[in-house]
Amino acid sequence: MRTVTKDNITQAFLDYCSDDTEPRVRFVLEKLVSHLHDFVRETNLTHAEWRKGLELLEKTGDMTDPERNEFVLMSDVLGLSSLVDMVNSPDEGTPSSVLGPFHILGAPDLPVGGDMKQDNDGAAVIVKGHVRNPDGEPIKGAEIEIWQTADNGLYSNQDNQQTEYNLRGHIMVGDDGLYQFSTIRPAPYTVPGDGPVGELLRATGRHPWRPSHLHFIITAPGYRSLVTEVFPSDDEYLDEDAVFGVREQLVMEYVEQNDVTAIPDGMEIAERLQAPFFTVDFDFVLAEEA
Amino acid sequence: MRTVTKDNITQAFLDYCSDDTEPRVRFVLEKLVSHLHDFVRETNLTHAEWRKGLELLEKTGDMTDPERNEFVLMSDVLGLSSLVDMVNSPDEGTPSSVLGPFHILGAPDLPVGGDMKQDNDGAAVIVKGHVRNPDGEPIKGAEIEIWQTADNGLYSNQDNQQTEYNLRGHIMVGDDGLYQFSTIRPAPYTVPGDGPVGELLRATGRHPWRPSHLHFIITAPGYRSLVTEVFPSDDEYLDEDAVFGVREQLVMEYVEQNDVTAIPDGMEIAERLQAPFFTVDFDFVLAEEA
Repeated sequence: MRTVTKDNITQAFLDYCSDDTEPRVRFVLEKLVSHLHDFVRETNLTHAEWRKGLELLEKTGDMTDPERNEFVLMSDVLGLSSLVDMVNSPDEGTPSSVLGPFHILGAPDLPVGGDMKQDNDGAAVIVKGHVRNPDGEPIKGAEIEIWQTADNGLYSNQDNQQTEYNLRGHIMVGDDGLYQFSTIRPAPYTVPGDGPVGELLRATGRHPWRPSHLHFIITAPGYRSLVTEVFPSDDEYLDEDAVFGVREQLVMEYVEQNDVTAIPDGMEIAERLQAPFFTVDFDFVLAEEA
Repeated sequence: MRTVTKDNITQAFLDYCSDDTEPRVRFVLEKLVSHLHDFVRETNLTHAEWRKGLELLEKTGDMTDPERNEFVLMSDVLGLSSLVDMVNSPDEGTPSSVLGPFHILGAPDLPVGGDMKQDNDGAAVIVKGHVRNPDGEPIKGAEIEIWQTADNGLYSNQDNQQTEYNLRGHIMVGDDGLYQFSTIRPAPYTVPGDGPVGELLRATGRHPWRPSHLHFIITAPGYRSLVTEVFPSDDEYLDEDAVFGVREQLVMEYVEQNDVTAIPDGMEIAERLQAPFFTVDFDFVLAEEA
């Protein structure tokens, strides 16, 4: 195209892509470039703003290393990560939510009824429920991975005072689909504010807090894998999660118990648990594989 | 917002921004996030594609250093840099075009009629014209900066065989607005293909070539500064510039001359120039300051 103008540049981009471009690549790029061009046109973006945007991307790159990915965090606080989760979620079953950057492979096995609290500080919680299919039937042999923060708001891989797999577990449910384990209440925490993401949050008057939550990955043959997180109903940041992860169906009721008779059968922690503590009853529903 | 959905997440983002966010920041972010969210919804972007996008950004960061900015190059090949130029261009006067990454400060003074070719290989060109206002009157005291590639397609700051300011000059025009200088024909060149930008070009079957061009920055008191580049009319990449910089009004006619009588008066190179050589006559028009 000899004369590129602000009105034909999007078409010029498409014309430059060869006809044998893989169709999905072409479609995704067409949409991306069309939206970026519209963004520039609708804002009459100045050179100074364009440079500022590029500087933010450069700084985001500078903050990113194998231990910390500031691009993922930027995607999180812009709502992009959560939106990608949502457009890929099946209509049935428990909603998915952001995986986050703190998952690690190799969580230790935890029997049904096992204790993940061990000697961690924090309020004790017994979490139980069933893994079910959309008809409400238990799913035999579902596998559950759990990870969460310690009472100081840090995950084990952020905190060298914790052992590698502290507050991480892997449960294989039985034929009844039941899972249960004891742990501590997770703590709210802030996303890191020392990089471009912090700059963005401050420029828009947003706080960096995430509501406290337990992470779950649940898998079972014949079902879609579920990556999600669940939130205590009394968390103060439930209505304003910095990374847009909360869904009404992912809110767990924490019930305060003042009597040890409320401890379910089969809990390893039963002998040493004293009231008060919390119980949570929460079922996960997996969608069938497409 | 307690239940974020794919339909309300854009509004949730806006609700989270505080009311005292600087209005332009809010507007630009609103447009950016709206378009990025629409992009995810319209493509049903998969997790794998989202990760691929983040990986490309990470690699772009890895390739970027004080000597080379892969983010700018990515912006260039997506047409964003050129579009930012266009939305900021006045309606009157010579169109602007991309500054590019090869400009350096401190180009040496060149008198009107001076020689920038020196002992560079390449076909000799005499470039002349006037700097005018929109009424066609010469602009006294306009300043012109010029930079270009050597015959090997490299700028002096890409090539340690060239001196620091080779093929760079700064001309102060006189009362008649006339500029003229001798140089060599610039050479077409490729944008670097060893990073994510190269990956993008290959994935879409695009070549990495830019048509040959001379860069100009022209400034004068009372007028808008013009950053532009001009292209020989016979360049084979004129209709498909990898960075979308070509405008019809920026195409210069290179006229082949077979007689030294075609050398204009006042050219320093006159004594040693032999035919054939090229002449170019091109006027620049500066818009008045807003």
